[in-house]
Amino acid sequence: MTPDEVQGFLTMGTRTGKLAIVRRDGRPHVTPIWFAVDGDDVVFMTHHTSSKAHAIRRDRRVAMVVDQETPPYAFVLIEGEVAVSEEPDELLHWATAIGGRYMGAERAADYGRRNGVPGELLVRLRPRKIIAKSGIAD
Amino acid sequence: MTPDEVQGFLTMGTRTGKLAIVRRDGRPHVTPIWFAVDGDDVVFMTHHTSSKAHAIRRDRRVAMVVDQETPPYAFVLIEGEVAVSEEPDELLHWATAIGGRYMGAERAADYGRRNGVPGELLVRLRPRKIIAKSGIAD
Repeated sequence: MTPDEVQGFLTMGTRTGKLAIVRRDGRPHVTPIWFAVDGDDVVFMTHHTSSKAHAIRRDRRVAMVVDQETPPYAFVLIEGEVAVSEEPDELLHWATAIGGRYMGAERAADYGRRNGVPGELLVRLRPRKIIAKSGIAD
Repeated sequence: MTPDEVQGFLTMGTRTGKLAIVRRDGRPHVTPIWFAVDGDDVVFMTHHTSSKAHAIRRDRRVAMVVDQETPPYAFVLIEGEVAVSEEPDELLHWATAIGGRYMGAERAADYGRRNGVPGELLVRLRPRKIIAKSGIAD
């Protein structure tokens, strides 16, 4: 996939990301996340008490995959490091954008007000490596 | 979700699993997998040279998530340990079943013959903990 195709794949509809981190005891962990794309970065939110928040305080390295679950199947895997922001304007902006993506434009402002608040973290994943495979079953 | 609802969720259509492991250098890794359910276990195949195969030789602990990517959103997360088999009959049986699930019954036998071969591993994930959340956005 070209960079534009990767971006189109990531932002299609309400596809979720599956974010992998490592727990304190060394076990892997993976959860679905709602995310947006900002230039080359992936941005998502998490509460500061979540497993994800604890994990990225210990180690900034994460991996995220987005896939197409129907034939011929495809996926984009992003490996990289995260940076965290608690800046209120940025929280509100991205909580609104992400709410709009996953719940529809008419509910975006509600989600922004609810999630763009202190205690939430804006996490920015800067890709170091992107692996994209399409037509896996062809 | 009840155990039956979890099983129904996992086996619905061609939903893929997203399997998280830890790389040798401590980074998390996650990839889509094709899988089947056998009683309480999740079974999938991987080549013995894959990142997944290397990782589970070092540490049997994995996590897998399956999610519904449309409102109101839902997911099933399974944490547990894996056991590996290279028994030819078992490889052929599950390669055929998994091929049928993801590519359709008429191509199951082809996939079985192609993937149920030496060099492939049958991985059986025994759940230690299952977290199921439905209606996340309600």
